[in-house]
Amino acid sequence: MGFISQVISVICGLIGLIFTVFLVFNILEKSPGNERMQKLSKIIQVGARSFLFSEYRILFVVIFLFAGFLWLVSSYQMALSFILGSAFSVLSGFLGMSIATRANARTTNAAISNLNDALTVSFNGGAVMGMIVTSLGLMGLGGIFFLGNGNTELMSGYAMGASFVALFARVGGGIFTKAADVGADLVGKVEANIPEDDPRNPAVIADNVGDNVGDVAGMGADLYESYVGSIFSASVLGSIAFSFKGALFPFFVASSGLILSIFGIIFVNYYIKKTKEVEPEKALHFGTYLTSFLQAIVVFFLSKIVFGNFYSGLIVIMGMVVGILIGVVTEYYTAKKPVTELAKSAPSGSAPLIINGLALGMESTLFPILLIGTAIILSFYLYGLFGIAIAAVGMLSTLGMSLSIDAYGPIADNAGGIAEMAHLEPYVRERTDKLDAVGNTTAAMGKGFAIGSAALTALALFASYLQVTNISIVDLNDANVFTALLIGAMLPFLFSSMVMKAVGNAANLMVEEVRRQFKEIVGLMEGKADPDYGKCVKIATNGALKYMILPSLVAVIAPMIVYFLLGKQAVAGMLAGTTGSGVMLAIFMANSGGAWDNAKKLIETGKYGGKGSLAHKASVVGDTVGDPLKDTAGPSINILIKLMSIVSIVIIPILIRIFE
Amino acid sequence: MGFISQVISVICGLIGLIFTVFLVFNILEKSPGNERMQKLSKIIQVGARSFLFSEYRILFVVIFLFAGFLWLVSSYQMALSFILGSAFSVLSGFLGMSIATRANARTTNAAISNLNDALTVSFNGGAVMGMIVTSLGLMGLGGIFFLGNGNTELMSGYAMGASFVALFARVGGGIFTKAADVGADLVGKVEANIPEDDPRNPAVIADNVGDNVGDVAGMGADLYESYVGSIFSASVLGSIAFSFKGALFPFFVASSGLILSIFGIIFVNYYIKKTKEVEPEKALHFGTYLTSFLQAIVVFFLSKIVFGNFYSGLIVIMGMVVGILIGVVTEYYTAKKPVTELAKSAPSGSAPLIINGLALGMESTLFPILLIGTAIILSFYLYGLFGIAIAAVGMLSTLGMSLSIDAYGPIADNAGGIAEMAHLEPYVRERTDKLDAVGNTTAAMGKGFAIGSAALTALALFASYLQVTNISIVDLNDANVFTALLIGAMLPFLFSSMVMKAVGNAANLMVEEVRRQFKEIVGLMEGKADPDYGKCVKIATNGALKYMILPSLVAVIAPMIVYFLLGKQAVAGMLAGTTGSGVMLAIFMANSGGAWDNAKKLIETGKYGGKGSLAHKASVVGDTVGDPLKDTAGPSINILIKLMSIVSIVIIPILIRIFE
Repeated sequence: MGFISQVISVICGLIGLIFTVFLVFNILEKSPGNERMQKLSKIIQVGARSFLFSEYRILFVVIFLFAGFLWLVSSYQMALSFILGSAFSVLSGFLGMSIATRANARTTNAAISNLNDALTVSFNGGAVMGMIVTSLGLMGLGGIFFLGNGNTELMSGYAMGASFVALFARVGGGIFTKAADVGADLVGKVEANIPEDDPRNPAVIADNVGDNVGDVAGMGADLYESYVGSIFSASVLGSIAFSFKGALFPFFVASSGLILSIFGIIFVNYYIKKTKEVEPEKALHFGTYLTSFLQAIVVFFLSKIVFGNFYSGLIVIMGMVVGILIGVVTEYYTAKKPVTELAKSAPSGSAPLIINGLALGMESTLFPILLIGTAIILSFYLYGLFGIAIAAVGMLSTLGMSLSIDAYGPIADNAGGIAEMAHLEPYVRERTDKLDAVGNTTAAMGKGFAIGSAALTALALFASYLQVTNISIVDLNDANVFTALLIGAMLPFLFSSMVMKAVGNAANLMVEEVRRQFKEIVGLMEGKADPDYGKCVKIATNGALKYMILPSLVAVIAPMIVYFLLGKQAVAGMLAGTTGSGVMLAIFMANSGGAWDNAKKLIETGKYGGKGSLAHKASVVGDTVGDPLKDTAGPSINILIKLMSIVSIVIIPILIRIFE
Repeated sequence: MGFISQVISVICGLIGLIFTVFLVFNILEKSPGNERMQKLSKIIQVGARSFLFSEYRILFVVIFLFAGFLWLVSSYQMALSFILGSAFSVLSGFLGMSIATRANARTTNAAISNLNDALTVSFNGGAVMGMIVTSLGLMGLGGIFFLGNGNTELMSGYAMGASFVALFARVGGGIFTKAADVGADLVGKVEANIPEDDPRNPAVIADNVGDNVGDVAGMGADLYESYVGSIFSASVLGSIAFSFKGALFPFFVASSGLILSIFGIIFVNYYIKKTKEVEPEKALHFGTYLTSFLQAIVVFFLSKIVFGNFYSGLIVIMGMVVGILIGVVTEYYTAKKPVTELAKSAPSGSAPLIINGLALGMESTLFPILLIGTAIILSFYLYGLFGIAIAAVGMLSTLGMSLSIDAYGPIADNAGGIAEMAHLEPYVRERTDKLDAVGNTTAAMGKGFAIGSAALTALALFASYLQVTNISIVDLNDANVFTALLIGAMLPFLFSSMVMKAVGNAANLMVEEVRRQFKEIVGLMEGKADPDYGKCVKIATNGALKYMILPSLVAVIAPMIVYFLLGKQAVAGMLAGTTGSGVMLAIFMANSGGAWDNAKKLIETGKYGGKGSLAHKASVVGDTVGDPLKDTAGPSINILIKLMSIVSIVIIPILIRIFE
């Protein structure tokens, strides 16, 4: 059965990749529009590539060094797994983003003829990311498991490779995107007095690139890590609880989720084709619900076939439901009544708006924690630690579909920008705005989903850590464990602080470069000369990569220091502390930031004073404060939590072998 | 030996009270200044009394009901201990604040002749609070222990009484003070355009009252709770580890700390008398260091006499050192280089200032946690859980001295306000400003100290909880415990959110009342009629008490719910989670708020644009955002952490008895 399951995983991955190729051709055969649109799209592509290449240059060195270290202290197979895990993550990020930056102008062009076509192009653009991430993730993990003859340790190397890339993509990308955003705004809008998205601003492309980098590639790498991490840890825990069939069940679940995501994507395409004047939100929601519904049925039978009962099927379904509900809660706090209430305080000034926004974000931690807690307890009662891990797999099993919708958002957003910059008819922009509005909602839900899945994955990894280090009890009544818990709870605060400062520092470098180009490039302001977009992108990239080193080191080194000073149980205590405070901080930051963003948008529709009013000014302050919280620090904490766990899983057993 | 120790505790308490009487006479025999100064001081006194009486009316009902509940499910002795614990806390708050509101004008008047006398009056005013809190705390706890024939359970009732009052004083007082502050500023300064501290503003007295309520009574009740909680839990853990002598050692340490604090206070008085042109900071620091130094020597011998070795003496000293170092770190982040750096970002606008301030506060969690962690581990290795508890006792043993300095700050602050409002010569204000500047530093250090001692006390209470519920292991590898940890980590966020919203709601009520008085009282604006200060104070009080109910219920009910749903081990997990994320949030909020406050003050000295500049406006926003963080939400978390522990200690064993 083992053989079959792994072959199925690899085959499903291959099917996913073949389907992706169809999607890519389907997108590329569409016209990218007139010359100006093509030029704009091209500039963004070049910028994105420039970012990725600079990033990869440093990333490869880190990967190479760490692989060497793994070879030295473990085995060459381990090093290879690690390299494969990172290579596949890089590959999916690169391909997914390349297509996303090509789908944007094509979406704009399709919007000239009708909304339905525009929705199809942008959705399929996002679907490429969704399919590559899940196909490569499943194929790679299944392949490693197969080649390693069921050796779960090698999978941990693969998962760590995914984590390292996620760190670069999320933290580096997060710093990049906000540094570019702030840099572009400060010099362009404020000093040079040119409008937003003006192509004369050298940093404006970096800003657009940043959206793709953060929301497409960053989100993709984050969820790739969760996807791989949850399957890996479920497989480890399953093999302990139910030997081989337990190890393979997660792969079955992921495989069926992948195939059903393909069905879902095809269904959305079909639904759009058949429906006159489609409502984008409905189309996307139908796709998600159909995929989840079918997966629930399949998993139910899978559970009966593999284990002889429906327990594990129930857990997987619960994981899916909790994932969707966390998204709903996130949407409520960042788009519904709380945002209206928040916007109402804007006329009193920026201070009340900030205070209320902070309070809103803090309050919003309540329901996600109750949901996650319920999932943990029910799944644990049904199937022990393995239960928790497959709840995480369940939440992520239809990632192919949900990530498609996440990645659709920034494409629609870029499409609107291109419509604006290419001076197309207003009705085109109206159509892309419709797509964009849905994208904002799905982006908020996606962020909640990313945090929720990171929390469950971290818990599954925590359980795996206990297994690989042979810890049966982590006693809070032990001073070392309690102290480590406090240190762990402190790390997300320290990490957030570093990341937020990094945004400020990188933004300063960007400001200087933009000022320099305005001064030195003759004819730039008159539109006679092009700015050096690449230079700007590179400056932001280097700044981002430079300032992400310290926080990254914290994530990698903290488990080792705690191990040496306080022992292996204390490492578990630290992971619990980091998960505990980290999940709260991540939810708080994401939702405060999201709510400020939407409060500003609400005011810009004319409410509470409208554009240019004091309320609007206050809301701009709120939005600016929220940006690094929701797009840099908050999402980076997802990575921190998972990376610390996976580093502990890989490194601590090696240290134990050497030093004990 | 037991008999002697308790008699000593009660006698030391009595000595402290007699000394307090001398201090009170010493202050009251000073002249309260001219008619106008007396009138202003009187108004503040009446306002403070008005607040306290309204608060007590509700507090008494709660105490009465809860005492009845305790009688029903436990014993009448338990109910009486609870009543005594709350009565003594109320008494010390009432007396301490009464003297503080009388010392303010006397300080101003003394400043007319010279700085030395002004320092003496204000310091002695603070010393009254310091001495009453420690004397009543020690006397009550020692008396209960004596009367109960060494029954530690009765002490838990006493400690819970202290906790309930602390909840009202800190949370209610914190909401009150910021609601009054915001209400006074919004209508007075912004709408009616009258200066700050103008006696025509009906809310201005509420504002002054608020300073006393929050910084004197609130801080006092907070530390009273820590003081009582740490001695109680050290006594419980000591009795288990070393039977009777272990139970009594904490009382010895506290008794010697109390007597040496009296020496310290006398020394400061003597030093001021003998020194020409005294430097206030030096005088206060000398007092603290002398007291700590003498206590270190005494405790060293105490340790040898009681246990035959120096271990427990070393732990007590370590507790004292860590307390002082946390204060130093707090001072660094709220008054040194980081604040200068923060102020530098003000010219870029309020958004960068807010982001950097948030980052500063988050970063500032690092060293306090490392210090607390070191204290936990070293003391645990020397003496187990008992070691941790006596580290907390050590930190708090010289509270008589350190609280004197804390409470001195608001008196000096009020003295400056009275000098301003009474139109005294500028040199008087200059002198009180000198005192006030030192007060700001000591206030920041005091806040750090309050958080640090709350953390260690919470840990000691955590250990006591395990003892009274017979839990030997709290296993993070148990899904219930881990889930409870997540819920616990969420509670400080939820609680902070509620408290911050409460400030906003109560401030709105205040704004309406001030507007009403401006409109309805004829001749108010012309200074011909007096505003109804009492009404304003009552409105703020009622608002504060109304909005504190929900967060308070959370603190009291959460342990019970978690016990019923997840079991007694899970309650321990929850307490660990709350302590973990709560301590970080408290430090973060206190230091962000403190840094914004001082950044504003720095800019007001003329740096980075000075008063009226855009940088100044940005810094005002920062300060306003920081106010509810540092004066309401942050300090309230101290109470949340301790109250949840003490509620668990008292209630869960009763529930276990009933339901298991």
